[in-house]
Amino acid sequence: MAVSSLGEFGLIDRLATLLGQPRTPGLLLGIGDDAAAWTPTPGTLTVATSDALVEGVHFELSTASWGDVGWKALAANLSDIAAMGCRPRYALVALGLSGSCALDDVDQLYRGMAECAAAFQCSVVGGDVVRAPCLMLQVTVVGDSLALNETGSVRPLLERSTAHVDDAIAVTGPLGGSAAGLHLLRSEPEARAREGTVATDVLLSVHRRPVPRVAAGTMLVEAGVRCGIDVSDGLLADLGHVCERSGVEAVVDTARVPVHRGATARFGESAVEMALTGGEDYELICTAPDHVVGRASALLAERGESPLVVIGSIVPAAGNRPPIRLRTETGDLLPVNRGGYQHF
Amino acid sequence: MAVSSLGEFGLIDRLATLLGQPRTPGLLLGIGDDAAAWTPTPGTLTVATSDALVEGVHFELSTASWGDVGWKALAANLSDIAAMGCRPRYALVALGLSGSCALDDVDQLYRGMAECAAAFQCSVVGGDVVRAPCLMLQVTVVGDSLALNETGSVRPLLERSTAHVDDAIAVTGPLGGSAAGLHLLRSEPEARAREGTVATDVLLSVHRRPVPRVAAGTMLVEAGVRCGIDVSDGLLADLGHVCERSGVEAVVDTARVPVHRGATARFGESAVEMALTGGEDYELICTAPDHVVGRASALLAERGESPLVVIGSIVPAAGNRPPIRLRTETGDLLPVNRGGYQHF
Repeated sequence: MAVSSLGEFGLIDRLATLLGQPRTPGLLLGIGDDAAAWTPTPGTLTVATSDALVEGVHFELSTASWGDVGWKALAANLSDIAAMGCRPRYALVALGLSGSCALDDVDQLYRGMAECAAAFQCSVVGGDVVRAPCLMLQVTVVGDSLALNETGSVRPLLERSTAHVDDAIAVTGPLGGSAAGLHLLRSEPEARAREGTVATDVLLSVHRRPVPRVAAGTMLVEAGVRCGIDVSDGLLADLGHVCERSGVEAVVDTARVPVHRGATARFGESAVEMALTGGEDYELICTAPDHVVGRASALLAERGESPLVVIGSIVPAAGNRPPIRLRTETGDLLPVNRGGYQHF
Repeated sequence: MAVSSLGEFGLIDRLATLLGQPRTPGLLLGIGDDAAAWTPTPGTLTVATSDALVEGVHFELSTASWGDVGWKALAANLSDIAAMGCRPRYALVALGLSGSCALDDVDQLYRGMAECAAAFQCSVVGGDVVRAPCLMLQVTVVGDSLALNETGSVRPLLERSTAHVDDAIAVTGPLGGSAAGLHLLRSEPEARAREGTVATDVLLSVHRRPVPRVAAGTMLVEAGVRCGIDVSDGLLADLGHVCERSGVEAVVDTARVPVHRGATARFGESAVEMALTGGEDYELICTAPDHVVGRASALLAERGESPLVVIGSIVPAAGNRPPIRLRTETGDLLPVNRGGYQHF
């Protein structure tokens, strides 16, 4: 049997089972959330995440510069830490290169990574450089929770498994911009040439240099939000992970989903589809009771961040159907398959 | 200019420069040691290391089983934590696979990894599974220092940069076994068939399932040793890293280097060469004043570990020559190039 028969998430579940129950004391969260979490000593909380990016699978050097690849490899991992409501601190980078790779390109890769690290007060402190058949990067980011000492809570984290019935579902910002940028790059090779058009530039930049919502994530935790995930696979796919881990379902009000303005301007109605299923926006999705969402929005606004946008609500699981339903403009409830990219 | 023109270590130095000075407070050690180290909060010390293994570069599935690859990928990283004198706690694994890969093989890989994790009380708590052109594994291990609270020292670590003139150089066990095992596998395809011969089995096992010296590493720190590295590239190459980072030279007494008994039995005098330049033995090299080495040996013996074997001493750097000289049986001092595997 080939691994592809299980699908990416089936494979992950199987591997987690093979690894057995973790035995290290102090572990709060193992495989299955945006990051692992543990308390190394009482009063401290560490989170860690690791992602691999492979040329031809996660990016193409025909549409992304080496600098963009460096930025994005780190940004994707910082977003996983943001999705835990934590602060990124240290990064380790394992880089696979062919020997004939141009030094200038590798310099650009590291410059892009260094720019991203500087923007989020994270330091690249180690890693590995090896020979490989294509460009590949594995980035690990270790972070910590700012909220632990303030709240006294044992788990001041955004987790996937803590959505509750009647929670509001909210997002930190507009979606679909990254998918629109990718679409431009793939379908219109001349998009690059037209750089300079503000609308095109914005979409390309959203796709190439996404901004993880690190500050917003920590503020959500500070305001008492305890359930969250980042939009890496797509809104429906990622909200689906939350539903599955929490044993609930979600109703999403299509008209309330904030769509990236540039995507709407360029692609009209198709932009809504991009906002629902496009990945790599790196905004955060969270769920919490209405009053907590209100408190979080107030805190975000007070500190210069966009307030949350409520897009739906958590409902009891009925089983036997996809966990997410879209409420259309006419009020109908439409069950949806989650979509989103699967590696296998 | 291609990256290969710089060599692996030149490339690492260049990338470290591009990344600039780390800005995260609490960082003790960045790029350049076996692992990065920081103090997340006063009284705690975290270390982290990340290595990539690529099929065809680090291993061949013709000579290693999938289970062996899983064991070794984790063991190599645990050894880096051992080389810091720390205790491994959590591992993150990013796995790259082709979609046509057999599920049974992946199961074996994870079983091997789970066995290694269990043997060293480490938990695999997260990671990533992606599609890739060949099998590749990137493992990150996060550990901590046991000694911090006991010694009150700010840096209860084995570092590369802390060798001092007149230190004795010692190793935790015999070398050359892994190189001998690899030589058997490569030169004698029938070696597998002859498994069952105890001598052959031992060498193959040393190569396929190396045992990181985690307990010994923590005991060295407890005894006051502060300089160490693991033998991953080879004794001369790894001792060379210590000399370079510490600004010293080393004289190694060839006759005192402990050679794996199985390697000597099988390869006679050539086994000495394997012990000097063969990689992946994962024993530890340390340097310390004589009385500290004596104290460490006593502690190791008391706890059922082999005592240290002194193989030479640290001498002042003269520059203009390779940092390591071998003292031959006749008393001559022979400058040596460090050897060891370089990726570029």
